[in-house]
Amino acid sequence: MAPSLRIGVVAPGTRIEPELAARLKAFAADSFLDRAPEIVVHPQCFESDGHFAGDDDTRLKAFVDYANDPTLDAIWFARGGYGACRIAEAALAQLNGASRVKTYLGYSDNGAILGGLYARGYENVAHGPIPVDMTRAGGEGAVKRALNWLIDRAPESVELGVMFDAKCAAFNITVFQSMLGTSLEPDLSGHVLMLEDVGEYLYRLDRALFQITSSANVRSVKGIKLGRVSDVPENDKPFGATAEDMMRYWCAKAGIAYLGRCDIGHDVENKIVPFGPLKR
Amino acid sequence: MAPSLRIGVVAPGTRIEPELAARLKAFAADSFLDRAPEIVVHPQCFESDGHFAGDDDTRLKAFVDYANDPTLDAIWFARGGYGACRIAEAALAQLNGASRVKTYLGYSDNGAILGGLYARGYENVAHGPIPVDMTRAGGEGAVKRALNWLIDRAPESVELGVMFDAKCAAFNITVFQSMLGTSLEPDLSGHVLMLEDVGEYLYRLDRALFQITSSANVRSVKGIKLGRVSDVPENDKPFGATAEDMMRYWCAKAGIAYLGRCDIGHDVENKIVPFGPLKR
Repeated sequence: MAPSLRIGVVAPGTRIEPELAARLKAFAADSFLDRAPEIVVHPQCFESDGHFAGDDDTRLKAFVDYANDPTLDAIWFARGGYGACRIAEAALAQLNGASRVKTYLGYSDNGAILGGLYARGYENVAHGPIPVDMTRAGGEGAVKRALNWLIDRAPESVELGVMFDAKCAAFNITVFQSMLGTSLEPDLSGHVLMLEDVGEYLYRLDRALFQITSSANVRSVKGIKLGRVSDVPENDKPFGATAEDMMRYWCAKAGIAYLGRCDIGHDVENKIVPFGPLKR
Repeated sequence: MAPSLRIGVVAPGTRIEPELAARLKAFAADSFLDRAPEIVVHPQCFESDGHFAGDDDTRLKAFVDYANDPTLDAIWFARGGYGACRIAEAALAQLNGASRVKTYLGYSDNGAILGGLYARGYENVAHGPIPVDMTRAGGEGAVKRALNWLIDRAPESVELGVMFDAKCAAFNITVFQSMLGTSLEPDLSGHVLMLEDVGEYLYRLDRALFQITSSANVRSVKGIKLGRVSDVPENDKPFGATAEDMMRYWCAKAGIAYLGRCDIGHDVENKIVPFGPLKR
């Protein structure tokens, strides 16, 4: 029997409850039986410092220790929230050779680290469900999809369009916006760039798309696909355009191909998008 | 007697009510008597298209027509809101010589156009109160401050630190963030950069400051001053740092001098900050 996959869980942004870690381990054991991975949750995930899951040094050290640990096969980000950009550059500068052969899976705020890893040539970086998704209604399906992909790259976990696209990358719109011009921004030339968001006023997304589609790097993509944009708060006045209208508008202005919708979002249907060319 | 200053008012973002325009004109006439400026409010300011004061073409044409009109001495933006970045680049490309000798005054969302003008070498661009400030309690004082500056560059209207600083520029944090990497971003080397914000969660401001202080252009400033950060919504959990803590944190990380507070903000105390060196 092959040894179990060992997955390290850290929280670069916001904390999770110990109960969630216990539920995650039990769910993985029950769902995968003798294929079940060993899930190693760093105690940093439960720490608290204001908004964050521990202060910057604590979060940085937890990520670096697990990423550099040769006994772990994957790093799975426990949760998004906010905080990855505070530690990403310093953390990435401390990574070793063992970190390069690992898989990294997360989304939302985690995009700051995922993008930074991909910018530094890491080959196994992916956008997809994370442990905190278990707290959503129907969230166990999302977590199972992620584990199926982590354990054996199950094709049914992967966003369907990825099969047909040359190279892909996926981000939250607002997080991706904030990475532009920083060392966390990867070269996206020739990529299909998939973007999703949650909980943002449409006027804010429109402003973010102005900046995103103004970027020379983004203008070198093969095209942009739009994931789900959910839980949009009501403005005092209807914005007058949908998220897809806005994406078409800005892509047209910038001469970027808009390639339609993709199956990602802040929800339980969120599929896996491996960064770069699909490895079979 | 010198001919009255003629001020053209346009709305690149969100609309105003006709009643506000009438009140503004009456207030200027009553306050300044024979020095009163002629305030010419473009009917575009009252138009409506979803979120915006008319569609992009309407807003662009109003701004370009007034900016290019040699009988107008100044352009005063009626209101912020959101929308300037949608028309700024195309509008700036259509400006003529008459537009170069005018004064431009606004703040908040208007920063996208103010920054773009300053990036294109316009010498009379300033951050300060706008007509919609009349709707705030005590807002007539802010509008009078703006008019005193427009009419005869009253020194008491100007932010105090500007006297002592080499070159200045001022922006809303979130608007400035969205201009980075676009053609609206001016060269800020050697400038004191003043930043303010309103109505943003602290975690969002922190993320914006990551991007802002990562910019090579921003790293070339003389230093950053922090204006008022008001109406911060409560997060589910206290962030654990003030806006000034965050500014110190990011400036220290980026090797940018943090120069303390400045007297600007989304409020009636908002002072005028002329862009570039102070002209006496």
